[in-house]
Amino acid sequence: MANFGGHAIPGTFFLLYGLWLAVKYTLRHHWRKGQTAKRAAAPAFLKKMEYVEGGVEMFAAFVGMMVEQFVVDGPHAHLYDHSTESWVKLMNWQHSTMYLFFGIAGLANVVANVTRTTHHGVDRLTLSVALFVEGFLFYYHLHSRPPLDAHVHTLLLVPVFAGSANAMLQVFVNDHLLLELFLAGLFFLQGSWFYQIGCVLYPLSGPVWDLQLHDNVMFTTMCFCWHLAIAMLVICVTMLLVSWIVKRASGGSVDVEIGMRSTANSSKKALLDDTDEE
Amino acid sequence: MANFGGHAIPGTFFLLYGLWLAVKYTLRHHWRKGQTAKRAAAPAFLKKMEYVEGGVEMFAAFVGMMVEQFVVDGPHAHLYDHSTESWVKLMNWQHSTMYLFFGIAGLANVVANVTRTTHHGVDRLTLSVALFVEGFLFYYHLHSRPPLDAHVHTLLLVPVFAGSANAMLQVFVNDHLLLELFLAGLFFLQGSWFYQIGCVLYPLSGPVWDLQLHDNVMFTTMCFCWHLAIAMLVICVTMLLVSWIVKRASGGSVDVEIGMRSTANSSKKALLDDTDEE
Amino acid sequence: MANFGGHAIPGTFFLLYGLWLAVKYTLRHHWRKGQTAKRAAAPAFLKKMEYVEGGVEMFAAFVGMMVEQFVVDGPHAHLYDHSTESWVKLMNWQHSTMYLFFGIAGLANVVANVTRTTHHGVDRLTLSVALFVEGFLFYYHLHSRPPLDAHVHTLLLVPVFAGSANAMLQVFVNDHLLLELFLAGLFFLQGSWFYQIGCVLYPLSGPVWDLQLHDNVMFTTMCFCWHLAIAMLVICVTMLLVSWIVKRASGGSVDVEIGMRSTANSSKKALLDDTDEE
Amino acid sequence: MANFGGHAIPGTFFLLYGLWLAVKYTLRHHWRKGQTAKRAAAPAFLKKMEYVEGGVEMFAAFVGMMVEQFVVDGPHAHLYDHSTESWVKLMNWQHSTMYLFFGIAGLANVVANVTRTTHHGVDRLTLSVALFVEGFLFYYHLHSRPPLDAHVHTLLLVPVFAGSANAMLQVFVNDHLLLELFLAGLFFLQGSWFYQIGCVLYPLSGPVWDLQLHDNVMFTTMCFCWHLAIAMLVICVTMLLVSWIVKRASGGSVDVEIGMRSTANSSKKALLDDTDEE
Repeated sequence: MANFGGHAIPGTFFLLYGLWLAVKYTLRHHWRKGQTAKRAAAPAFLKKMEYVEGGVEMFAAFVGMMVEQFVVDGPHAHLYDHSTESWVKLMNWQHSTMYLFFGIAGLANVVANVTRTTHHGVDRLTLSVALFVEGFLFYYHLHSRPPLDAHVHTLLLVPVFAGSANAMLQVFVNDHLLLELFLAGLFFLQGSWFYQIGCVLYPLSGPVWDLQLHDNVMFTTMCFCWHLAIAMLVICVTMLLVSWIVKRASGGSVDVEIGMRSTANSSKKALLDDTDEE
Repeated sequence: MANFGGHAIPGTFFLLYGLWLAVKYTLRHHWRKGQTAKRAAAPAFLKKMEYVEGGVEMFAAFVGMMVEQFVVDGPHAHLYDHSTESWVKLMNWQHSTMYLFFGIAGLANVVANVTRTTHHGVDRLTLSVALFVEGFLFYYHLHSRPPLDAHVHTLLLVPVFAGSANAMLQVFVNDHLLLELFLAGLFFLQGSWFYQIGCVLYPLSGPVWDLQLHDNVMFTTMCFCWHLAIAMLVICVTMLLVSWIVKRASGGSVDVEIGMRSTANSSKKALLDDTDEE
Repeated sequence: MANFGGHAIPGTFFLLYGLWLAVKYTLRHHWRKGQTAKRAAAPAFLKKMEYVEGGVEMFAAFVGMMVEQFVVDGPHAHLYDHSTESWVKLMNWQHSTMYLFFGIAGLANVVANVTRTTHHGVDRLTLSVALFVEGFLFYYHLHSRPPLDAHVHTLLLVPVFAGSANAMLQVFVNDHLLLELFLAGLFFLQGSWFYQIGCVLYPLSGPVWDLQLHDNVMFTTMCFCWHLAIAMLVICVTMLLVSWIVKRASGGSVDVEIGMRSTANSSKKALLDDTDEE
Repeated sequence: MANFGGHAIPGTFFLLYGLWLAVKYTLRHHWRKGQTAKRAAAPAFLKKMEYVEGGVEMFAAFVGMMVEQFVVDGPHAHLYDHSTESWVKLMNWQHSTMYLFFGIAGLANVVANVTRTTHHGVDRLTLSVALFVEGFLFYYHLHSRPPLDAHVHTLLLVPVFAGSANAMLQVFVNDHLLLELFLAGLFFLQGSWFYQIGCVLYPLSGPVWDLQLHDNVMFTTMCFCWHLAIAMLVICVTMLLVSWIVKRASGGSVDVEIGMRSTANSSKKALLDDTDEE
């Protein structure tokens, strides 16, 4: 969807998903820290969150696919037009394919929590594949576009492929908070960069960007780094905020709000012991 | 062998090999789960399977090499023609070289099971090398072909090199079911993509594909992702089917059908404990 | 800042930072070795060093940003000139952005030591990101420069990206002296190479280098390897010197000079046991 | 040294070094297997071997550097000719630089064994750096050569960079026989490929190769794979031969020939247990 909205919608999705991952991973981290040996299963609240996350992913992917197919100028589920002997709206089909893989990742997330026979890490593996497919399709998307257009989409590949590598690494390295927050930050960066692409290619106000000018390429490269700094800041603040809420909640009354059941002592101890442990 | 059959034969081989790996790895996983401390050696059935696998690999590689050499328009084991001062049928020789390395991988598989003096992971290392050689030769194969032809072969390199990296990783990370199933999926994907290449370059029916058209390049890129989704689905269904059969078999009568000797209880426990363990 | 000084200043900074890392990591290594089970916290001296390091990093980054902005021909905090409809001094802005990320790394270093709620490895992760951003901006910096100019800056990317990868690896592999000294060496190499770039592009004396001559490209490639050899030598000598001082200090009187509190015996033992341990 | 001999000399060195590594690693592996808990230090024989290896490396590197400098048409230690304002014999200087780093690797090997204060893995790290420098200089060596010449040197980069990565990995993964033998195989491959390069560019007999012909590029690519297969075979046979000799020696009389001091039983047990252990 070649307009500002077409970039703002996935941008909003990725921004929120990044924030959500930061919240989820911080909560999980504190639950693990406060966990005593006898309780191995995650609390009900954390499990429910996974269902909701997977459900929302599937729903968003489904809506995205439907919109790409059935917008006014969409392909309406036609792939090949025999009358003109040409493919119909391949860009919409490619976007649908991207959404499909995020839908699969959401499904894997739900299935991994519903049945307990599925295997550890299948949710991260499918997420890694979804990001790889997104980057893979974008990479071959860029053919014969003007320099600035190609460049801002190339920069998008940085958080996409880094996120894919990060999620793949999480299949092997479990429960590493810093790695998990880094993934959250990469999603946030991807989201905010989608907005930036929208602003560059389809400015809502102000002058149109010269897509051939090398100085614009140089500026966007630098601007991407500023987005990265902001993403790191936002994820960091989110993490500290959630940590502070958890600490207050578990300090005041046990088992309320986030169902953590850990006593105030063990939770505080966990926070203090954090940097000492290996 | 530049025709549909020349792509369908290796395609079929890789499809079946991917399915077979999914079955083998799932069986091995369940055996490991049901294993009690006193029995360290793999059951006879799993060992026999390895012999058969290695034997079939060697046989298929030998047949492949013979066919490439002695088809009607093959090089008939001549490498250099002194009369014309040129190399004879280099493409057939390159295909023979690919088969040779899969034969070596099969040999390593058998030797690693016959003698017990060989070293852990030698079968995966040789498989990784075989896939690397396949990708390496294909990579230099693509010189001066039309865009679509080069593109569909470039896409083939994705499952080939990813498979090589995966097998290399398995030398160090043992008994990681998800990693093993991912390798099975990559083989399946390679097989189905061989069929797709055959369909694009040598269509059995319908119009000939325009090898210069950029839209065809875009479609095949997306089509590759669909093959990936199908490969993931097929491997997942295979795994669930085998798991279900194992559960039924070991639940009904001990030591039948797949010779697992684990009691029904330990096997069920293994299935239930699966997602909890790290 | 396109002159010799503009390369000598960051060069000096990176040279000193490399030396400092070599000293710090060697001291930490000896402290870990001499450590007895009852004392888990790092000695006050090592902690103070981290504050000083972070503080200096932040201060240097701030000064660097200010200088880049407010030199005579700098942008003076103006990003876009509406009168000429063009970006103002983008190169200075890019350098400021690089300094910003080293400032963030310094901040993370301090925060990780002040509060104990922050997470293990956050200082290395931010350092890795800072190096990545530096390399990333340099990479897109090189557009349409003469061959030799582009080449000497490309060679700079080797220690920058290798350092980024090294720091990222240290998030997962802790307390590996060889890896840490390698990072110190890469910073030293980066620093000495900055001087070399200054010498090549803005020679203080002697003839101007021909920026088009291929032989100059070949020489600088080889010269880079000599810098690498010198960096390895310097870091090695620094490490041996610090080790020797630590040994003397802890052998003569306990708790002096570097506050290590380990007895001479345990320290000597640590040095001797070094190559045996895994 | 642009003649057959100039490729045969380093080729011979790398062939022998590959064989030697295969012997050394197999012996070390068997020593580790037969080792009982009370003896932690390596036997005198294995230590002496390391001295000899390091010494030979340093001597060969020194001779190589001298030869490159003081052959009849060499630079005779002159780097820059002020009369003609040009660099003197840069190719010889580059080769000298390569030898220098292998000399450093040899030195690190000796030092790591003489003093016990040096750090685990420093010999592999320097070897990895030496291979990286070799590949790095070769990579920028290839500018503006005819296609076949550039191609056979590009293929050389495969074992060089793979060897560098392998040695770097060994800094972290210790005592993994398969990984070590793979490194031996990569050195053997590099050596045999040096001979092949000599044969292609400076044939001793037979017709001169057409350096522009694409078929020659295709043939050498395939030929490289054959060299790989031969390298794998040779290393495998060497390993089996050494294992067989060790078994016979330790079975017949204890403490003879290779000073292993393990009893026949423990050694045999080690061989049998080999594939079971993780």
